[in-house]
Amino acid sequence: MRLFCGMLLGKVSTMSKGELTRQKIVELAAPIFNQHGYAGSSMHDVMQATGLEKGGLYRHFGSKEELAAESFRYALNQTIQVRSEGLDTISSALEKLRHIVRQFVQVPSPTPGGCPLMNTAVDADDGNPVLRKLAAEAVSDWKCRLTVIIEDGMRRREIRKSANSRRIANTVIAALEGALMISRVEGNRTALCDVQESLESLFEEIACKQRG
Amino acid sequence: MRLFCGMLLGKVSTMSKGELTRQKIVELAAPIFNQHGYAGSSMHDVMQATGLEKGGLYRHFGSKEELAAESFRYALNQTIQVRSEGLDTISSALEKLRHIVRQFVQVPSPTPGGCPLMNTAVDADDGNPVLRKLAAEAVSDWKCRLTVIIEDGMRRREIRKSANSRRIANTVIAALEGALMISRVEGNRTALCDVQESLESLFEEIACKQRG
Repeated sequence: MRLFCGMLLGKVSTMSKGELTRQKIVELAAPIFNQHGYAGSSMHDVMQATGLEKGGLYRHFGSKEELAAESFRYALNQTIQVRSEGLDTISSALEKLRHIVRQFVQVPSPTPGGCPLMNTAVDADDGNPVLRKLAAEAVSDWKCRLTVIIEDGMRRREIRKSANSRRIANTVIAALEGALMISRVEGNRTALCDVQESLESLFEEIACKQRG
Repeated sequence: MRLFCGMLLGKVSTMSKGELTRQKIVELAAPIFNQHGYAGSSMHDVMQATGLEKGGLYRHFGSKEELAAESFRYALNQTIQVRSEGLDTISSALEKLRHIVRQFVQVPSPTPGGCPLMNTAVDADDGNPVLRKLAAEAVSDWKCRLTVIIEDGMRRREIRKSANSRRIANTVIAALEGALMISRVEGNRTALCDVQESLESLFEEIACKQRG
């Protein structure tokens, strides 16, 4: 119940019993979907994890798809929250980029099963269109957050105006997600650390020279 | 039957009827497992695709796991074959690296469903240990092929001796696989092309200066 309590502490008093139960279902379903994918997870698995009967579960979620979508949103928000920790206290754009990479490399996803974005994107690219759309939105949002930082860095003359912010954002996301895939399959963090070093070089390359 | 005929043309005359049937099952099962993952694919799906009865299928494969493993090996070999095309005609190590990246970016996986390595790695990292081991071996083999090229480039004084071949190999694999994930979810090739450009910069960075 750790995540549940942590996340909802401020909200608990204003939530109805029904809302609390719904939230608790999502919190317990998220690791199931994140570890086993859409096809590998069943409403029966969620019933077992929550202790709810079929009727109780379907009162809150009309379908497995609806619950999977809500579980993805929850797991993704948890991950973003953890990975963004401390970002607001940094003013330099390049330091913000470095912090994002460091957090990704050092802090594992709070939901068991690895990165919810990678899992859902790979799981849904030939499958569920609702989940695919959510994964596409998550990629787009992440790219947008990085682009805003990079373009702010250009305005502050920390990052060269000639840098292509979309290319940098795509490269950061691709390299981190791909490295996580390698690291999880190898059972060590070597690929993540290697990619962190390569992204550092990329940031050096786009830095305005007078600051280097 | 295109892939089947193309791949086996030289072998057909020496294969028994049983071996041919086994190979045909693998060829038809590979797109099913590659698109829908282990949990999302059933022996029933393979029976439908092959037109075989249950007994006929189980005569060749004792379990779904055995068939999934064989399907992964087949899909991976097809992918490696396509992506390595023309590599032997190139002598420069840096040109070889560029060629590998270009082939990955331009030539889609011959098995529907995207990169078999990415799919199986993400599918199996919390699941089937046999598939996870095969995915780990595939990552290790790919890294080894890249490392051999990079270290050959160092001996030929094309690539700086100070470059870390493992870091470069991990970065190439991670960036390409991650970009494929983004591209498939976005439905366009922008991320792949962006990552190609970033990897070009990385290759420039490790090139011996006298050759630049």
